Formats: sequence, structure tokens, C-alpha cells
Amino acid sequence: MDIGMIGLGKMGANMAQRLQRGGHRVVGYDPGEAARLGLEERGLETADSLAALVAALPAPRTLWLMVPAGAPVDATLEALRPLLQAGDVLVDGGNSNYRDSQRRAGQCREQGVHFLDCGTSGGVWGLGEGYSLMVGGDASAAERLRPAFEALAPAPDRGWGRVGPSGAGHFAKMVHNGIEYGMMQAYAEGFAIMQRKESLALDLPQVAEIWRHGSVVRSWLLDLTADALADNPALEGIAPYVPDSGEGRWTVAEAIDLDVSAPVITLALLERLRSREDDSFADKMLAALRDRFGGHGVRQG
Amino acid sequence: MDIGMIGLGKMGANMAQRLQRGGHRVVGYDPGEAARLGLEERGLETADSLAALVAALPAPRTLWLMVPAGAPVDATLEALRPLLQAGDVLVDGGNSNYRDSQRRAGQCREQGVHFLDCGTSGGVWGLGEGYSLMVGGDASAAERLRPAFEALAPAPDRGWGRVGPSGAGHFAKMVHNGIEYGMMQAYAEGFAIMQRKESLALDLPQVAEIWRHGSVVRSWLLDLTADALADNPALEGIAPYVPDSGEGRWTVAEAIDLDVSAPVITLALLERLRSREDDSFADKMLAALRDRFGGHGVRQG
Amino acid sequence: MDIGMIGLGKMGANMAQRLQRGGHRVVGYDPGEAARLGLEERGLETADSLAALVAALPAPRTLWLMVPAGAPVDATLEALRPLLQAGDVLVDGGNSNYRDSQRRAGQCREQGVHFLDCGTSGGVWGLGEGYSLMVGGDASAAERLRPAFEALAPAPDRGWGRVGPSGAGHFAKMVHNGIEYGMMQAYAEGFAIMQRKESLALDLPQVAEIWRHGSVVRSWLLDLTADALADNPALEGIAPYVPDSGEGRWTVAEAIDLDVSAPVITLALLERLRSREDDSFADKMLAALRDRFGGHGVRQG
Amino acid sequence: MDIGMIGLGKMGANMAQRLQRGGHRVVGYDPGEAARLGLEERGLETADSLAALVAALPAPRTLWLMVPAGAPVDATLEALRPLLQAGDVLVDGGNSNYRDSQRRAGQCREQGVHFLDCGTSGGVWGLGEGYSLMVGGDASAAERLRPAFEALAPAPDRGWGRVGPSGAGHFAKMVHNGIEYGMMQAYAEGFAIMQRKESLALDLPQVAEIWRHGSVVRSWLLDLTADALADNPALEGIAPYVPDSGEGRWTVAEAIDLDVSAPVITLALLERLRSREDDSFADKMLAALRDRFGGHGVRQG
Repeated sequence: MDIGMIGLGKMGANMAQRLQRGGHRVVGYDPGEAARLGLEERGLETADSLAALVAALPAPRTLWLMVPAGAPVDATLEALRPLLQAGDVLVDGGNSNYRDSQRRAGQCREQGVHFLDCGTSGGVWGLGEGYSLMVGGDASAAERLRPAFEALAPAPDRGWGRVGPSGAGHFAKMVHNGIEYGMMQAYAEGFAIMQRKESLALDLPQVAEIWRHGSVVRSWLLDLTADALADNPALEGIAPYVPDSGEGRWTVAEAIDLDVSAPVITLALLERLRSREDDSFADKMLAALRDRFGGHGVRQG
Repeated sequence: MDIGMIGLGKMGANMAQRLQRGGHRVVGYDPGEAARLGLEERGLETADSLAALVAALPAPRTLWLMVPAGAPVDATLEALRPLLQAGDVLVDGGNSNYRDSQRRAGQCREQGVHFLDCGTSGGVWGLGEGYSLMVGGDASAAERLRPAFEALAPAPDRGWGRVGPSGAGHFAKMVHNGIEYGMMQAYAEGFAIMQRKESLALDLPQVAEIWRHGSVVRSWLLDLTADALADNPALEGIAPYVPDSGEGRWTVAEAIDLDVSAPVITLALLERLRSREDDSFADKMLAALRDRFGGHGVRQG
Repeated sequence: MDIGMIGLGKMGANMAQRLQRGGHRVVGYDPGEAARLGLEERGLETADSLAALVAALPAPRTLWLMVPAGAPVDATLEALRPLLQAGDVLVDGGNSNYRDSQRRAGQCREQGVHFLDCGTSGGVWGLGEGYSLMVGGDASAAERLRPAFEALAPAPDRGWGRVGPSGAGHFAKMVHNGIEYGMMQAYAEGFAIMQRKESLALDLPQVAEIWRHGSVVRSWLLDLTADALADNPALEGIAPYVPDSGEGRWTVAEAIDLDVSAPVITLALLERLRSREDDSFADKMLAALRDRFGGHGVRQG
Repeated sequence: MDIGMIGLGKMGANMAQRLQRGGHRVVGYDPGEAARLGLEERGLETADSLAALVAALPAPRTLWLMVPAGAPVDATLEALRPLLQAGDVLVDGGNSNYRDSQRRAGQCREQGVHFLDCGTSGGVWGLGEGYSLMVGGDASAAERLRPAFEALAPAPDRGWGRVGPSGAGHFAKMVHNGIEYGMMQAYAEGFAIMQRKESLALDLPQVAEIWRHGSVVRSWLLDLTADALADNPALEGIAPYVPDSGEGRWTVAEAIDLDVSAPVITLALLERLRSREDDSFADKMLAALRDRFGGHGVRQG
């Protein structure tokens, strides 16, 4: 099928290429010329404006957004919607908040455009290994996109599916990322404990490699952990500074909103916040208080 | 090689069988006659006493313990040590505390017996898929056991290794289980959040299945999660009661002892404790206090 | 001064009475007749409509809202604003979200009405002991209300103050309640640990009473704890079920929004959510998973 | 009564002085000459050896230990016990682990010496305000010490008591400190949230002062917080580095041992550990993993 890919960053360009490999015609668009040239170098077609992109696709059109979550999605939709017509399908494959997706689906519905929210996991490895895709929205629209999903997923019959109405795809992806935070933190803590046990001089890359085979904790994240430790056993030159891109916060907020206690996902998020505090006011206050009642003194800082 | 397997429960019997399939001669011993008969029905040889077991093996002997951690290991060692001689190798493949293993290795060393602590992961699936084995102790003794490790592991060249001196194997296994607690809790929280989001009516077995392919959170535990949800999507008939068998507690204690903050592993343990409190005194006190200062009333209980 | 008190629930009626005791003329209004009668029985004046209330007060008027946070405040404001005129001062003494207060202050400002957000702590004890008041909004309006604050506070010169611009009062109160959650949970956990240590048979009411004098953990909440335990040492008849009224959630959301890691306040909130889950899906999944990989069985539920 | 005070550090010297003020004769001993001279400067009697101390007291003797927990207590006991005789009473007023106290009480009992474990709270303020004392051990021995407890406590009839058999006093003090950790962390987090809310420019010393009067969170620790913030509103020059002296760890370990989930006390401890990690391996691993799957890059460190 013919697919317009909007947003040619790391994710968008790789997905365009995987779709093409799957036998589809992909036309790419990105406001940045360098991004468009990058896609052309991979042998794919591009358009230099949204209007040109829309014009290059037969109706009913399929347009796939891979742009940063938040304002960029709304800006793109605002520019795009006047160019679309009833029956077109718009997929948001980025990490949008599911409530935004529900709102956007409503806006599109007003003009007869189908909006699918597609949670996409797989990162930079998706080009080769395929993506895991959780789709929310109208069932018939999702069915029309089946060939695209089959090409993007690891195999046509697995790793993708329509999981519910508008918002369901991004909701599932949000929770996926919350789980990801928890798992990463669990591994990180475990290896930190072993690293600190100097008397046993555990070989961390070796332990990670052993666990990859037959253990209860084997996983794809462990495969990456083993690779990372094999390349850099002491993780030298890497700052203990961990960004977060939003889905973890949303998961925590959603859990609280639903009255679900999710301490591990929550603490995994807080640990990331903590990693970025280099002069914690809370800790200074604890130090000050200990000194006040116990005369313990404080470390100068 | 010839191997005596002491303890023929679920784990011991399966490991005996996998060793035999790998071309080894295994003689099994268990104080329970039913367990011995069970092994014989699988076509393996048994001995009806520790003395008979030791007599059935050529020196230097290899004896593998798969008995419950704690007092049973010490009791078995006490009975076994007078029967052993210098050069014999004793492997503790159970979930012993690494400090106990260090102590026991010292006791064995006094009479020239080698003691290896072998952290074993794989559960009931190990018979078919192989076990992940983390070995601590004398390097030459570990090398002598190589054929056994190669047969037990998923493949001869992967999934096992000597990771350090006495205690290192059980230390690594302890941390493995701590990570396992954290991962399980992360998945459990994520699915609980989705289950509670009734407005989206997410199909949990389908989401788990999608995530198995291409997602960042794919893992063996997710495979099991998908199986469990496919069989019983609402987890009906299962009480929200989660035992723990000790390694998680040890991991938490060790982390604190090493001054490592491990909030996710720690909270995963606390959540298990919490699952078993059906009449929390702390929560009653919170309810009582709210009533005291705010006049909010309490729910009768 | 003359003050109109809107909302004559537990808090509003007590505050009206304390203001009157402080020498002020208070006219109370509540949509419920019983609430109005209750105030009259305390010897205070009431009005049977907002219009009558406004008419009963000399301009520039002082109106104090003690109505439930959220929609009730907006509904009251919508009904009240057409009755007000430039120079009037409106105080919201309830537990409103500080962002709502900032919005409402803006709405009031358009018609020249001053809006003060006044975080109020003290609960049912405030009538006798005085209230702790954190005021946000225009400094000159706050100054005009000084006599009212002096009457409500424990003493004219302490326990109240303007802490910043619109929103600052309710922000400080929100954080106050987050701290309150953490403190309550700390006490509750501590007493739960002692209660479970059966071999020492600690007398919990006695320990609480000892700590009230000279210890580092002495506090007003401990005074209440000691009272509660003296009356009911085993907390019999109290369900382990802990509601929350919103400020804790806001504190957690705000902390995350500000990139501040606040694990103790956060966990105190999650524990309350947890206290209300009687059939945790997460725990059922943990039980199911343990059984899947370890063959541990599950408890029927 | 006559009391020998062993250990003349901050706590021991102050307690000796408070006892003397209460009308008792106190003889102090410390292995350090400077500490003995310090006590003499306060006008108290000292002895220059344990033997001299014991000789200076009439039988049956009362000896009070204020030495650092752990090995120093055992060393002192080992030196002291040969000098004692049946009927003497030994009080350990330090922060000993309650299990050690139970063991030591058993050792003393063999020679007819009474051993009381006395949890002591109050810090450097105890000299003026009195100490909170939780006593464990034989009831008749505790009764014999009544005059000393009455002098040390804030008032003769409050702030002290025998709370149970040997170990109960130090157990209660251990839990007290766990609660203290949780409370301190709750305040610290709350003030950190306010400090970070720059748009409201909250005056932290003022907020703390307001809360001291009439609020639900008023406490002695808040009094100290208000003092600390009044002296140094931005906590300048204080490093965010928070030591811990053991009782928090014991509380966490005990809670887990008793199967009590105590997340707030536990996280308060972990936050202290975290404050002392300046190059967290766990955070480096999280950063490395994010880069591996998402190509997010890492910050150099």
C-alpha cells in the first residue's frame, strides 16, 4: 500500500525503510531538509511539504506520524487536517499521551478522517527486528492498515494488534514504558549490589551473560545489559544521569488516578528524578536537622 | 561422569534426569521413599542411604545437594562429611544464603573436600530448557565438574560459569532473585493498571502476547505472563497472596549492608509482605488518626 | 469586623464561632437548613441565601468560603460573583487545588474583587486551639483581613501569615498535607512493628505516652496517637481502610512535575490506595507467575 | 542515689549533670582524660578507672553505660563484670541493638547482676528538657532505679517507663528512631517541594513558623526545622550528605523479619544511603541501557 511517513527522525526513517522492505510504497516528509535527504539516501521517496506529500498519495490516504509527542503533533495535525478528506487514515505512532489521542481522534472524526493511536516499541532495533505495535481506534480503519502493521511487526502474525478504542494503543504503550522503567531499575539495582560487593570480585559481564541463558530473569533488556557490560564493564565515562521522556510520569499519574498502588513503577520514576538532583535540598535539610537535635555536625558542601 | 544427587524434590529429580540425558550416570538419594521411587520410575538409579550413595560412587566423588536451604543443608552435611574423603566435590545447588556457603566451604576445606556453591535458576522449566548456573568456589574443582554443568545448562557453552570464590555463586543467585522480584512486580503493576482502566476494556492476554514480539519489555517472564493470562484472563480463583522464599529478603539486607539504595527490589519485597497482611495494624492506626484530627469517622472492621 | 461565612459544615461552623469569640460579627450561610440552624443554636446569625448574606454585610465585604474543594467552590463563586462589587474580599479557606485558586483569583480580579487562598490546618481541634493559616494573594487584601486571621490563629502573633501571591496559601497547605501523610505513615508503621513483636509484649499506649515527653518524635499527631491507643489499645473495630481527600495526590503530582523525588510522601499515598484494594490484581498475577515458573502452587481465592 | 556514669561523651556528660541536678551523687568514668576533666569542670566527681569507679559506689551499685553501641559495650562489660557483685544494677542507656541487650542481660543474670536496657531519646536538648526513657528488664530492678529515671525524664511522672522484659527498651528506641527517619524525610521532602516551586517564592522559614502553631504537622522536629531555616533559609554550606547510625537499618530489618511492610521508614533509610552515593552504578546502567535501546546518548561523566 501507499503510506506517507511524517517525521523522519531515528524512528520515522527506520519505520519508513522497514515498510518499504515489506513491499510498500513510502513517501517521507520532514520539515528538515537533512532528514529528507537522509531518507533519500536510503533510496526512499520524499515530499518537501505536507501538501506535496498528500498530493503524492492516492485516496483514501494513509498518513503515519512519527513526530515528538505534545505540541508538535497538534501543530502537524492543524496543518494537515485541511489537506485531508473523509476516509483518509491518520496514524500517530509516537509516544503521545492517550488522552491527547482521544481528543485528536474526536477532532478527526468530525471530518470523517480515521485516527489511529499506535503505541510503538522496539527503539533503534526495530528496523531489523520489527516493532511491537499496539493500535487503538476504529476497527475497520485498523483492518485497512493491516498490511502496514504486518510489515512493521517482527512477523505478520505477531507483535501487533488492535487493543481497543481510541486511546487504547497509547495507553498500553504508556504502561509498557512504565514496566520498562521498573525492569531497568531492577536490573540496575541488582548489578549495583554485585558491583559493590568487592570481596567477591564478581565479573558482571559474565554474570549477565550466564543469566541470558536459562535463568528466570532472561529478557531482551538483559541482552542489552550484557552487551553494555561486555563493552564497558565498569561503565566508565557514563554519567549517573537518567532522563525520562514522559510515559513513566503518565503511568504513575494514571495509576494514582485509578487508585492502583504501583510502588515499583513509581519508585523507578523517582529514582530517575533523583539521579538528576545534584544538590538535594531535602538531603541538606536532613543533615541540618540531625545536627540540630543530635549535635552530629554536617559535612560542608 | 558419576554424580550423586541428594534431594529428589521437583528440582533435584529434574536435574538428575537432565544429567542422565546428558550422558552421565546419576545415583539419587532422598530420605523419602516416594521421592526415590519417583526417580526410579524415570529410569534412574537410587540409593537408600547416604552411605549407600557414597559407596555407589567412584572416588573422587561428585555429590550434588538439592535440599531446602537452611537447616536441612547443615543436617545433610553433618551426616555426609564423615563419609567423604579428600578430593571429593560437594555442590550445593539450592538457594542457600551465600554466607552459609562460605562457612560450609570452610568446614569442608578442613578435610580436603571441595565445596562449590551453585546458584541455579530455571525452575520447573529447566528440565527441558536447561538451567542457568552460577558457580562459586575453587576453580579447579569447578573445572572438574565442567561436564555436569555443560549437561545442565541450556547449551554446553552458555548459561553457566564460575563467577568467583566460595559464596559468589549463591550471592549472584540471591541478586538474581531480587531482580526477579522487581521484574515480576513491574509487570504485575502494569497489568493491574490496565485491568483497572475499564473504559478502554483492554484485552490483557492480547497485550501480553503483542509485547512478547519486538517490544522493549519482552522476556521469559512475559512469556509466562502471557500464558497465565491466556489460560485465565481475570486470574479467577487465585488469591492475592504472595509468599517469598528468602532470597529477596537477603538481597534487601545485603544492599543495605553495602550502603546501596535499591528501592525497587526493596518495594517488590515489601509488596509481598503486604499481600499477606489482611488486617494491617498500620492502616487501622491511620484510619483512627484521621478520625481523631479531622472527625472523618472510620469504617467498621 | 463583619464576616460572611459560606459553608457551615464541621470546619465552617467552628471557624465562625471562633471568629465570633474573637469579637467579630459573623453571618453564616449554608444551602442546608440544618446547618444554618446548627449555627444559630451556637448563637450566631445566619442568612438564608447568598443574596441575603451579601446584603447583611457592609461594603467592602469580607466573605469566607468553607465549602468542599472542586466543583462546589466554582458553583458558589458563580452564584456569588454577580452579587459582589469592587473592593470586596473573598477568602477560600478550604482545601482547594492551588491552580484552581490562581484561576479563581484571576476571575475575581476582573471585577475588582480580591481573592485570597487560605490554607487552613487544625481540623476539629481548631475551635479550641486555633487554626494554622497560610494565606496567598494580594498583600493589601491580606492586611485588611488581619483581625480575622488573628482571631482564628492560636494567638494573634503566630500561626498565620501571607506566604506569597495567589495560590501560595493552598500550595503550602497541599504540601502540609503531604507531610502529614508521611508523618502519619511513619508512626503507623512504627507501632505496627511493635504490635507484631509479640515476644516483647510492648504496651503500645504506654510507649506512645512516654514518647510524648522529651523524645525526638514528640508531636501533636503523637498526642492524638497516644489518645487513640489509650482509648483502644488494639484498635478493635476499626477497619484497615484509609481514605484520602486529594491533597496527597496533588503533592505527589506536583513533586514529580517539579522533578523532586519525594519517596516518603509518595509511598504514604500509595499505602492508602493499597489499604483500599481488597483483591489486588497485581498480587494475583505475582502468585500466578510464581506458580508458572516455580510450581509453587497458589492459594485459592 | 549513687550512680556511676560510664562514658562521658555528649550524652553521658549531660545525663550525669541532669542526674546531679536532680539530687543524685554521680561519679563519672571515661577512658579519655579530657572527657573526665570536662565533667569535673561541670563540678562532678570522676574516677580514673572502672575499678575506682566501682569502689567509689556503695553496694548494691548502680552503673549507667553511655558508650557507643556495639563492640565498645561488650568490651566495657567484659572489663566491668569481674568487678561487680550480685544485686548490682547495670543500665545500658545507649543505642544498642535489642538482641545484644537480651544477650548481655543473660550474661549478667548468671552472676546475679541486673541489666536494664534503657532507650534514651532527647539528644543534646535532653540536659535542659529532659530525656524520654524506655526501660526493658527486670521490674524490681527498674523500680529501684526510679529516682534516677524521675530525674532524667522531663518530669518525674512522665516521659519514662518500663516497657517490657530485657530488650524491650532498646526495641522501642529502635522503632522510635525508625519513625524519626520517616518524619524527618517527610518534612525534608515537603520543604524541598516548596523550595523548588520558584514561581511562588515561598518564604520557607515563615511557613515552618506558621505550621508550628495550630497545624496538624506541628512537632518538636518542626520546631528544630523552623530554627534551622530561620538561621539559614537556603541551607547554604550544608552538604546533601546524610549519615545514619544504625537504628534505622535495624528497624527495617526487624520489620521485614516480622513480615510487616513499612515502606516509609524503609524509603527514609534508602534515601540516606542514596544521599551518600555520588556516582551511582545503578544510574549509570540506566543511562547506558536507555542509550542501547533508544539511541538516546548518555551524558559524559
